[in-house]
Amino acid sequence: MSAPAHRQPPKGTRDFYPPEMAVRRHIEGAWRQASIDHGFEEIDGPTFEHLSLYTVKSGEGIINELFSFRRAGGDDDYALRPEFTPTLARMVAARATSLPQPIKWFAIPTHFRAERPQRGRLREFIQWNVDLIGVEGPQAELDVLSTAIVAMERLGLGPSDVRVKLSHRGVVAAALHALGAQSERLADAFALLDRRDKMEPAEFDARALAIGLNGSASQRLTEIARTKLAITSDAGAIATALGCAPEDAQPLVELTQRLIAADLGAWCELDFGIVRGLAYYTGSVFELHEATGSERAIAGGGRYDKLIELFGGPSMPAVGFGMGDVVLGLLLRDRGKLPADEGASLLPRPDVFLISAGAADAEALLLQLAAQMRREGLHVRHTYKATRNVGKLLSEAGKCRARHAIILGAELEQGMVAWKDLDASSQALVPVGEILAKIVAAPRSS
Amino acid sequence: MSAPAHRQPPKGTRDFYPPEMAVRRHIEGAWRQASIDHGFEEIDGPTFEHLSLYTVKSGEGIINELFSFRRAGGDDDYALRPEFTPTLARMVAARATSLPQPIKWFAIPTHFRAERPQRGRLREFIQWNVDLIGVEGPQAELDVLSTAIVAMERLGLGPSDVRVKLSHRGVVAAALHALGAQSERLADAFALLDRRDKMEPAEFDARALAIGLNGSASQRLTEIARTKLAITSDAGAIATALGCAPEDAQPLVELTQRLIAADLGAWCELDFGIVRGLAYYTGSVFELHEATGSERAIAGGGRYDKLIELFGGPSMPAVGFGMGDVVLGLLLRDRGKLPADEGASLLPRPDVFLISAGAADAEALLLQLAAQMRREGLHVRHTYKATRNVGKLLSEAGKCRARHAIILGAELEQGMVAWKDLDASSQALVPVGEILAKIVAAPRSS
Repeated sequence: MSAPAHRQPPKGTRDFYPPEMAVRRHIEGAWRQASIDHGFEEIDGPTFEHLSLYTVKSGEGIINELFSFRRAGGDDDYALRPEFTPTLARMVAARATSLPQPIKWFAIPTHFRAERPQRGRLREFIQWNVDLIGVEGPQAELDVLSTAIVAMERLGLGPSDVRVKLSHRGVVAAALHALGAQSERLADAFALLDRRDKMEPAEFDARALAIGLNGSASQRLTEIARTKLAITSDAGAIATALGCAPEDAQPLVELTQRLIAADLGAWCELDFGIVRGLAYYTGSVFELHEATGSERAIAGGGRYDKLIELFGGPSMPAVGFGMGDVVLGLLLRDRGKLPADEGASLLPRPDVFLISAGAADAEALLLQLAAQMRREGLHVRHTYKATRNVGKLLSEAGKCRARHAIILGAELEQGMVAWKDLDASSQALVPVGEILAKIVAAPRSS
Repeated sequence: MSAPAHRQPPKGTRDFYPPEMAVRRHIEGAWRQASIDHGFEEIDGPTFEHLSLYTVKSGEGIINELFSFRRAGGDDDYALRPEFTPTLARMVAARATSLPQPIKWFAIPTHFRAERPQRGRLREFIQWNVDLIGVEGPQAELDVLSTAIVAMERLGLGPSDVRVKLSHRGVVAAALHALGAQSERLADAFALLDRRDKMEPAEFDARALAIGLNGSASQRLTEIARTKLAITSDAGAIATALGCAPEDAQPLVELTQRLIAADLGAWCELDFGIVRGLAYYTGSVFELHEATGSERAIAGGGRYDKLIELFGGPSMPAVGFGMGDVVLGLLLRDRGKLPADEGASLLPRPDVFLISAGAADAEALLLQLAAQMRREGLHVRHTYKATRNVGKLLSEAGKCRARHAIILGAELEQGMVAWKDLDASSQALVPVGEILAKIVAAPRSS
């Protein structure tokens, strides 16, 4: 046995030392609590699935982006989950008849992509998934969008940091129709819109022509993709911007009305360039972006009413989104929404730091008090150093941000211990037999 | 695209629907809080590591128990983590000079073993890891054992449910020496002890002879392995039981003294049959077992002072343990320490269930109140059904265990809403403008 060649984690994966883990738990905590407050219940699935689960939705093309494997001696092909939706759809399909509806689930699993790591994109990342299944109307969209926005708020972000960009495939389809796009080529039209920044104008025009859009219609198509509107429930304004009939804008109007009623309008805008590459969206689509548009999307989602069926379940309407931790973490750092110490001050604060200062029976008493206080749910620390230098030990207590210090020193002979409130910088002598009750009754560290 | 062949998770892995997830979070919550209260800080690492990291400690033999893979087009061999210790050792080694000491870390990651699934053993499982690095004395053992025991207590278990079985390789080595075992064959002697139940007596005797133990010494060896003592800090009693000198028992005495001082003695016993298969333990070894011994070990650990060095770090003393969720979950279920509804009552309780009962402006008000209350951190639900039947909606509120219901009904015309405290079965009419403040001030659901 020899020392391993690798001191670093695999390329594109991360070690979470305590400060990095504290940042991760801070983000996950905001996600979890916003989900629960909106009535979503947490689920999880296996870290790997049968490989075939991922080709159902995404085709064989996805295989190169997956980490796939077999068990030695086994003949099942597995893959590390690249996203959560196939697991979610499988879980819904397996119990569709027995699950109470609507199904409101969230999950915060790790995911894996065998891509080249780059800014905002890693090979292993954490993604928050929120899905509402079984509700047709725009209340479902409102609830998932509100969940995303409340989580942003709790992380200290506001409408000037994050924009929620909304579109609706049905509304944009009406506009494409009005331009002359063939009904049976709408999926191609959305794919073209989605990839518009990745091709030359000539190629774009040629492809537009192939789906029934001539030169000036192709020009209008790119204009639609650049159309942004402040949030509005005015069907006429949307219709004018898109060149469709006001009644075609109705699905978006019903959603924007609710967003405004829930006081979420300031976060949102209409952006008809939002397409979402995935073919399975059937209605609303949305993305959360850093306000200046400088990073990748923070989150993306929409309505996918055909997906559960695709995975062998019944036909069920559904809305959901996914939000990764990597781009969001960059944004929080850039906006100064994480402590300057990169997480250290997010670590849990000790309630009590116990100091044994020399008396012969102090050591056993320290062990006993520590055990009693921990049984009361207090976060208790003590030194592991041999020193009995109270000054040094108080400085150790301060360094770990302990709220109280209890010193078992010379006063033990009179049956007393010294209790220091390190936040208030006050001190008192307390009988040994009373210190537990006093410290349990004191305000706790957050 | 066609419906997938698989509705179930891969063999040996689990779907966590909300009730199962609530049980998992209940267990993880007890683990996490006990760790924090003992001053441990949370870390995590990658879900997969370079394959070579796992052969350092365990040799090539472990490869068949791993899920291993390469990235398509890549040439690095990776494996899903079967345990956390190699990641921990790598992380310590990489920053050994800069990390404050002692290092007190815990982690609650998922792990993977490509074994045949059976009762108490799955292919994907969650394992709590607690490690204290940089402390030589028995205070380190006390702290990790106390952390494990406090977590058991918080899950409702007591000394009649779970036994902590302690041994010490140094003390048992002294006993083996006294029997005539050769110093350079001690590792073989421990391996023999560990596998004693898996071989015939004749084979056992033959192997004992090979390491210097004749027939009667071989007999004594099996007696030692069957020796159990109530927790004691009496060196003489330990020495008599083992046939070693009282001073040889000192390492165990120092630990038991501390366990008794911390009032943890009732949970513990000495059991010299506890060996722990892993070659890397260098001192104390311990396991947590269901009290009647009917399941696999709940947890296992001990002192491993050479391990960080083995992974290329400096020489550092270390103590730690791992506890999986599968055996513990079986025990909690068997002992009735989980709700009879298998987790449903562990789901978060809504603070408020909002009911719109017909008034024209009630819908918009409901959206506004829901948004305001959630921004205050309240868990708020409402129906998605079209009904305005207040009785049905109150029954829905009761079913999800909401604490309060607020009814936006006919009283809205007088600017009032009905506020029902569903726990206290009391009701009051409250002005619309005051309900938010009143509900924020009301006691929260746990």
